[in-house]
Amino acid sequence: MKRNIKLILEYDGTNYHGWQSQIGSNMPTIQDVLEHALEKLTSEQLRTVSSGRTDAGVHALGHVANFKTASRIPAEAWAPALNHILPNDIRVLLSDEVPDDFHARFSAQGKIYQYRILNRRSPSALYRNYSWHMNKRLNLKNMRSAAACLVGKHDFSAFRSSECGAKTPVRMLKELTIKKRGEFVEVFLEADAFLMHMARNIVGTLVEVGLNRRPVEDVKRILLSGDRKKAGRSAPSCGLYLYRVFYL
Amino acid sequence: MKRNIKLILEYDGTNYHGWQSQIGSNMPTIQDVLEHALEKLTSEQLRTVSSGRTDAGVHALGHVANFKTASRIPAEAWAPALNHILPNDIRVLLSDEVPDDFHARFSAQGKIYQYRILNRRSPSALYRNYSWHMNKRLNLKNMRSAAACLVGKHDFSAFRSSECGAKTPVRMLKELTIKKRGEFVEVFLEADAFLMHMARNIVGTLVEVGLNRRPVEDVKRILLSGDRKKAGRSAPSCGLYLYRVFYL
Repeated sequence: MKRNIKLILEYDGTNYHGWQSQIGSNMPTIQDVLEHALEKLTSEQLRTVSSGRTDAGVHALGHVANFKTASRIPAEAWAPALNHILPNDIRVLLSDEVPDDFHARFSAQGKIYQYRILNRRSPSALYRNYSWHMNKRLNLKNMRSAAACLVGKHDFSAFRSSECGAKTPVRMLKELTIKKRGEFVEVFLEADAFLMHMARNIVGTLVEVGLNRRPVEDVKRILLSGDRKKAGRSAPSCGLYLYRVFYL
Repeated sequence: MKRNIKLILEYDGTNYHGWQSQIGSNMPTIQDVLEHALEKLTSEQLRTVSSGRTDAGVHALGHVANFKTASRIPAEAWAPALNHILPNDIRVLLSDEVPDDFHARFSAQGKIYQYRILNRRSPSALYRNYSWHMNKRLNLKNMRSAAACLVGKHDFSAFRSSECGAKTPVRMLKELTIKKRGEFVEVFLEADAFLMHMARNIVGTLVEVGLNRRPVEDVKRILLSGDRKKAGRSAPSCGLYLYRVFYL
C-alpha cells in the first residue's frame, strides 16, 4: 500500500514556465523540478497531483501538491529532504501524510489568490518581478464598489481565458477585497475555484476602474455580458500569488 | 559652469558587488553600471559621488548619488532617461538639480538602514535574497531592551569591521527600533553616519539576544569593551536595505 504525501510549497515563479509540465517548452516548470527532486530522493518515478496550474511568472505562497510513494521517509522529513535538493526559489513549507483519497485538486474546497500592485510614481528595482507597477494613483473607493458587484455565485465567462477548458463558467467568488499597504495595493480573491486567467482578468478590469478609464457600473455589465472582449486586459502574471488552498 | 545633479536610487543588490567600483572584481558594482549609463546618455566621462558604500548583496530603497555634468538634460528627465538604459534591478526614483556644493556623502546629515528578518520555521523561496531567515522565534522584548542600550552617542568600535577606515568610531545612533510585521521582524537603525558593517554587526548581536544565546546586559558590556571579537557575527547582507539618507 502506497502512502499519500501532501506538500505545501512556496515558489518564486520568475524563472519558471508555471506549475505544469509542458512538452516543448524551454523553461522548466515547477512540477518538472519537483518531480526530479522526488525521483532523486526516492528513486521512484512519481507523478504529483497539484491544486491547480499557475501561469508562467506567477508566484505561490501556499501551493498544494500530493503524490503516492512506497518510500518510508517520515511525513515531516519530506520538507527538509526536498529543500536540500530543490533550487532555492522553490521551498517546501510543510509535508504531511494524508488519507489515501486526498487529491490536491479534487479535494480542494477553495482558494485565495493575492495580487500585488505597486502604486507609486517610480518603478521599483526590488519589486520588479513581484508586483505590477501602476504609476497613476488608483481610486480605491471605485475599485471597491466595482469589486462588490463581482462577489457571489456568477457565470464568470467574461473573465475567463478563451483557452479555459473548465466544464462550467460558474464560480462562487466569496471575497474580493482591496487593501492598501504602504505603496502597495493588494487584491485578495477567494473563490471555490478559479477559471483560467480569472484572477488576472478581474484585477486588470478593476485597475481600469481605478484609473477612471471605466465607470464602476461597467463591471456589472461586463459580468452579465459573458463576453471576454468587454473586460479589461489581463493583469501581468508577476503580481499574482497563489496564497492559500483550503481543504475540509 | 557644470550642473550638479542628484539622484535617488533603488536597487536590488543581489547580483552586484556592492555600490563602489572595484578593481579586479568579477561582479559588476552599482556605481560601474550607473556610470556606464551616464556615459551612454551624455557622452561624458562622469564620476559619481555616493552617500556611502554598500556591501555586496545589500539593497537600497533610497541611495543618493550626485555628479557634475555639462549636459542640458532637464533635471527631472534624468530619472526616466537613465531608467531606459539601466538594467531593471537598478531604478532611479528621482532626479533633481542641486546647488554646486551639494555632496552626496559630505552633505549627508544622517541615514536610516532597515534590516529584514524572516522569523518563521520554513525557509522562503520568495524572500531568499531579501531577508535573513531565522527559524527560531525571536524574543523581541529582550531585543528591544538590548537595543535601548545602544541608542545615543557612543564609541561603536565593538560593532565596527576591522577593515573600517573611519577616523573616529564615535557615532550618534538616534534610533534603533524593532517592528513586527507579519512573519517579518524589521530593525530600523538611524544614525548620523555608520561605521563599516555597523548595522549588520548590531543586528547580528541583537539576534543572539533574541535567540536567548546572550543576556540583554551583554550588549552594554560589548559596547563598553570596544572589542569587535565580543560582538555577535555579522547579519547577512541580503537582509539589509539602505532606507533613506537625510540632507539639510
